[in-house]
Amino acid sequence: MSILVVGSVALDSVRTPFGEVEEVLGGSATYFSVAASFFSPVRVVAVVGEDFPAEHLDFLGSRGVDIGGLRRVPGRTFRWRGFYDYDLNEAHTLDTQLNVFEEFDPEIPEEYRDSEFVFLANIDPTLQLKVLEQVRSPRLTICDTMNFWIENKRSELMEIIKRVDCLLLNDSEARQLAEEPNLIAAGRRLQSTGPRRVIIKKGEHGVIMLGENSYFSLPAYPLETVFDPTGAGDSFGGGFLGAISREPDLTEDAVRRAVVYGSVVASFAVESFSCDRLRTLSGEEIKARYDEFMEITCF
Amino acid sequence: MSILVVGSVALDSVRTPFGEVEEVLGGSATYFSVAASFFSPVRVVAVVGEDFPAEHLDFLGSRGVDIGGLRRVPGRTFRWRGFYDYDLNEAHTLDTQLNVFEEFDPEIPEEYRDSEFVFLANIDPTLQLKVLEQVRSPRLTICDTMNFWIENKRSELMEIIKRVDCLLLNDSEARQLAEEPNLIAAGRRLQSTGPRRVIIKKGEHGVIMLGENSYFSLPAYPLETVFDPTGAGDSFGGGFLGAISREPDLTEDAVRRAVVYGSVVASFAVESFSCDRLRTLSGEEIKARYDEFMEITCF
Repeated sequence: MSILVVGSVALDSVRTPFGEVEEVLGGSATYFSVAASFFSPVRVVAVVGEDFPAEHLDFLGSRGVDIGGLRRVPGRTFRWRGFYDYDLNEAHTLDTQLNVFEEFDPEIPEEYRDSEFVFLANIDPTLQLKVLEQVRSPRLTICDTMNFWIENKRSELMEIIKRVDCLLLNDSEARQLAEEPNLIAAGRRLQSTGPRRVIIKKGEHGVIMLGENSYFSLPAYPLETVFDPTGAGDSFGGGFLGAISREPDLTEDAVRRAVVYGSVVASFAVESFSCDRLRTLSGEEIKARYDEFMEITCF
Repeated sequence: MSILVVGSVALDSVRTPFGEVEEVLGGSATYFSVAASFFSPVRVVAVVGEDFPAEHLDFLGSRGVDIGGLRRVPGRTFRWRGFYDYDLNEAHTLDTQLNVFEEFDPEIPEEYRDSEFVFLANIDPTLQLKVLEQVRSPRLTICDTMNFWIENKRSELMEIIKRVDCLLLNDSEARQLAEEPNLIAAGRRLQSTGPRRVIIKKGEHGVIMLGENSYFSLPAYPLETVFDPTGAGDSFGGGFLGAISREPDLTEDAVRRAVVYGSVVASFAVESFSCDRLRTLSGEEIKARYDEFMEITCF
């Protein structure tokens, strides 16, 4: 059940129509590992600067996240500043300071190399590939990406996509990467390049998953207020891979259930800034919202 | 099981990324009645000009559509010309010639006034209200609308919405009418103004239905090619009300099934220009796609 995530741990400053926060806990590996920690133990490989608050490390530790692979190096932690308008589907970046993340070169500790489930969060595809070469025989590997890598490292990105079991990306990234406006056709095209499954996140419109001979579509949980969408995709990834890690067999049914769990955790994550909602989330609340998903989609 | 529709019968000229047609059969009442005719007999109240091709009347007749209320008057038939880019969610209008439709004043024939199910297609809300006043005691009434009426006849529109059982509109119209960017909140707000149910069409993202104490979300059928989206919403309405008309009781389950049937018929309608795909559609194909909807959404 061991899950490994490699990605960013950051300090985010975010403004949404509902409020504003300065330098709160963020980063893809953070959201992922907190989300996955509701299901299985998680190992994090990431880097922070000397200025990273100890309380955040304590929080991750309290969630049972193994931070032995989270290096603290001289310099400042990765910072992101951005805002969302009422169209919460699009993040507007005001400032990105890579800081110590610029030199991030993920070295997987020997004791992490047997991880069964590997999440390659949104980092340089060259680094994603390097991680993949260090893990021994994972049961399932997933990679996420973003428009920056599609535009600037397409061939490296296609190389990693060819080698993972599952590609996770959002709808505009899927269209851009496949160079195809129809989302279903884009997903099929990407799936044919290698990964057994392509999962496309559509924000308020839910998620679709394309497999070799399968198609699954799940609407979003109906939230009347999306407080802050930052980290929704990584929270989905964490909930998804966490749920997967508890399944004895990776059948279509099992993977579909995991998509629902991913959507459940993501729907909570966007209810407040940072991972704040996940700090108080309970297993009972996760189960109740899973049941609600059944209720609102069944016919 | 008698269904009444009041709306437009038109000649459409449409260009999409996949082709172009001139003056083909179109109009909201056309799409609706052809779609509904797979389930129950339909009565149409509309108006056409002297130039309206007899073959189209023959086609409607062949589908069992009662065109006794379809008046043919001196002048030219309503014409619409438009195009779609790769973003097929938005129709770009090049030319609208209302012609005989400008003076349309729907008089419901005496023998139609006992109709059990009434679809008020997208026409002036003042006319929709006039229709409602002429029918006796329908089991279910639905109205559709569009941005033009939201902008120019808001108070009349709110009056008709208050009086129908079900409001049908698309996502941008719902946001505009409710003056609320969050779609779920917009739907709830509209539902609180009167109608028991609000159905919001989201094109490639499916459809949501908000009831007094219920919420249902259905993804779209995964089409790799949407050939021409014209008439998708009215085809949905026809499939929906057609399926409703065959249910003994209007329970939540029954209405959800009807939403799926509406989506099934709409997914066929967009596979070619005009109602062409519906000309050859069979009951078996409808049933097969209904089953596919179950398969792609269940977990």
